[in-house]
Amino acid sequence: MDNEQYPSSLLEQAVTELSHLPGVGRKTALRLALHILRRDESEGVALGEAIINLRRGIRYCKTCHNISETDICPICSSPHRDRSTVCVVENVNDVMIMERTRQFGGLYHVLGGVISPMDGIGPESLNIDSLVERVATGEVKEVILALGATMEGDTTNFYIYRKLSDFPEVRITQLARGVAVGNDLEYTDEITLGRSLLQRTLFSESFSV
Amino acid sequence: MDNEQYPSSLLEQAVTELSHLPGVGRKTALRLALHILRRDESEGVALGEAIINLRRGIRYCKTCHNISETDICPICSSPHRDRSTVCVVENVNDVMIMERTRQFGGLYHVLGGVISPMDGIGPESLNIDSLVERVATGEVKEVILALGATMEGDTTNFYIYRKLSDFPEVRITQLARGVAVGNDLEYTDEITLGRSLLQRTLFSESFSV
Repeated sequence: MDNEQYPSSLLEQAVTELSHLPGVGRKTALRLALHILRRDESEGVALGEAIINLRRGIRYCKTCHNISETDICPICSSPHRDRSTVCVVENVNDVMIMERTRQFGGLYHVLGGVISPMDGIGPESLNIDSLVERVATGEVKEVILALGATMEGDTTNFYIYRKLSDFPEVRITQLARGVAVGNDLEYTDEITLGRSLLQRTLFSESFSV
Repeated sequence: MDNEQYPSSLLEQAVTELSHLPGVGRKTALRLALHILRRDESEGVALGEAIINLRRGIRYCKTCHNISETDICPICSSPHRDRSTVCVVENVNDVMIMERTRQFGGLYHVLGGVISPMDGIGPESLNIDSLVERVATGEVKEVILALGATMEGDTTNFYIYRKLSDFPEVRITQLARGVAVGNDLEYTDEITLGRSLLQRTLFSESFSV
C-alpha cells in the first residue's frame, strides 16, 4: 500500500500499530485513528495508557496462570473453592466464561493455548508441566479437561491425559459433548456450557469404543 | 454487564477504553486486550504510545484544516497545486481518498463533518466560516463540493452554496452524481470517483429543474 498518502507520520504510525490487532486491516485502523482524533484528547490518552498499563502491569497467578493482581489469584486463594478439582482451560477468557455458568466451585489451570503444530505451538510452550506438578502434590482428585471441541483441543486433551496417566487415582474427565463440534468455548451459550460441565464424562470412555 | 468477572482491574480498564472505539463491543474489546497480552510487551507499548502520540501530537493545517505536521500542510504550500480551485470535503480521510484518484490538482478544505441536526452538528461546528474567508480573498475561482451523496451532504452543500452566494464570480460545482446515492465517499470505487470529479456540474443546476 502506498504510504505517502498519510498527511502525518503520527497518523501513519497509529494506523500501522492498530492494524496489528486481530481483524483490523489498514482501512479499519484508519477509521479507528480518525475516531480517536475526533474525540477528546483525554479519551485518546486514556485508551493509550490503558493499553500500556495492561501490557506492563498485568501479572499471572503462580498456581493457575490466570491473570491476577497478586501472586496467587483470588480463586486459588479462596477458602470456599474445592481444591480437589482442577478445571483445565485454554485461556484467561475461558476462565471468565466458565465462572459465568456458576456451575463450578473448583480451581482452574490456564494452559495458555492448545497444541497446534500448524501454529508452531507444541506442548512445551503450554503450562502443562505445572499442571502435572499440581497433580503430583496429591491434593487434586479430579482434572476436568475443558478445552474447545476442536482438533487442537482434542489433541491437547489426549496429551494431558497421557501425561497424567502416572496418577491413576486422579479422575480425568472432560466436558460433555454438548459443545458443538468445531466451535470454541467463546461461541457456546451458557446453558449448554453449564449442562456439559454437569454431564462431564470419563476421558478414557471417549476413545475406548 | 457484571464487571466483577474480570480478574484484573487493568484488564477491565483496557476493555472499557477499547470498547469506546466504533464497532467494538465489550466482547471484541476483551479479545483485543487478550491479543495484546499474548504478544510481546514492546508491541503493546508501541500501540499505546502511537495512540497517545497521535492524539497529543497531531496538528491541523491553518488553511485547509487537514492533518499536518506543519502550520500549513504540504498540499496548501505546494507550488505545483492550482490555488484557484478548492475542493470541500467532509474529513481528513476524504482528502486521502480524493488524492488517490489522481484527478485533482487544486487545494482542499476539510469541513470536519456535515450538517446533521440529529447528531447535534450545526454549521457553526464546521469549518465553514474559514472557507468563506478563503473565498473572500479573491484567489479562489471555483469551489468543488465533494461531500457524500447523503441527505446530510446535500444539506451541507446547499448551506455552503448560500453562504458563497455573495461571490457570484466564483463557480460552485459539485461531484457528478456517479456516486451512488446514500453512500459515503469511503465506499465508492476510485474510477467512479475520478469520473464524477471530471464530470462535476454547476450546483445551481441541481435544484433548478
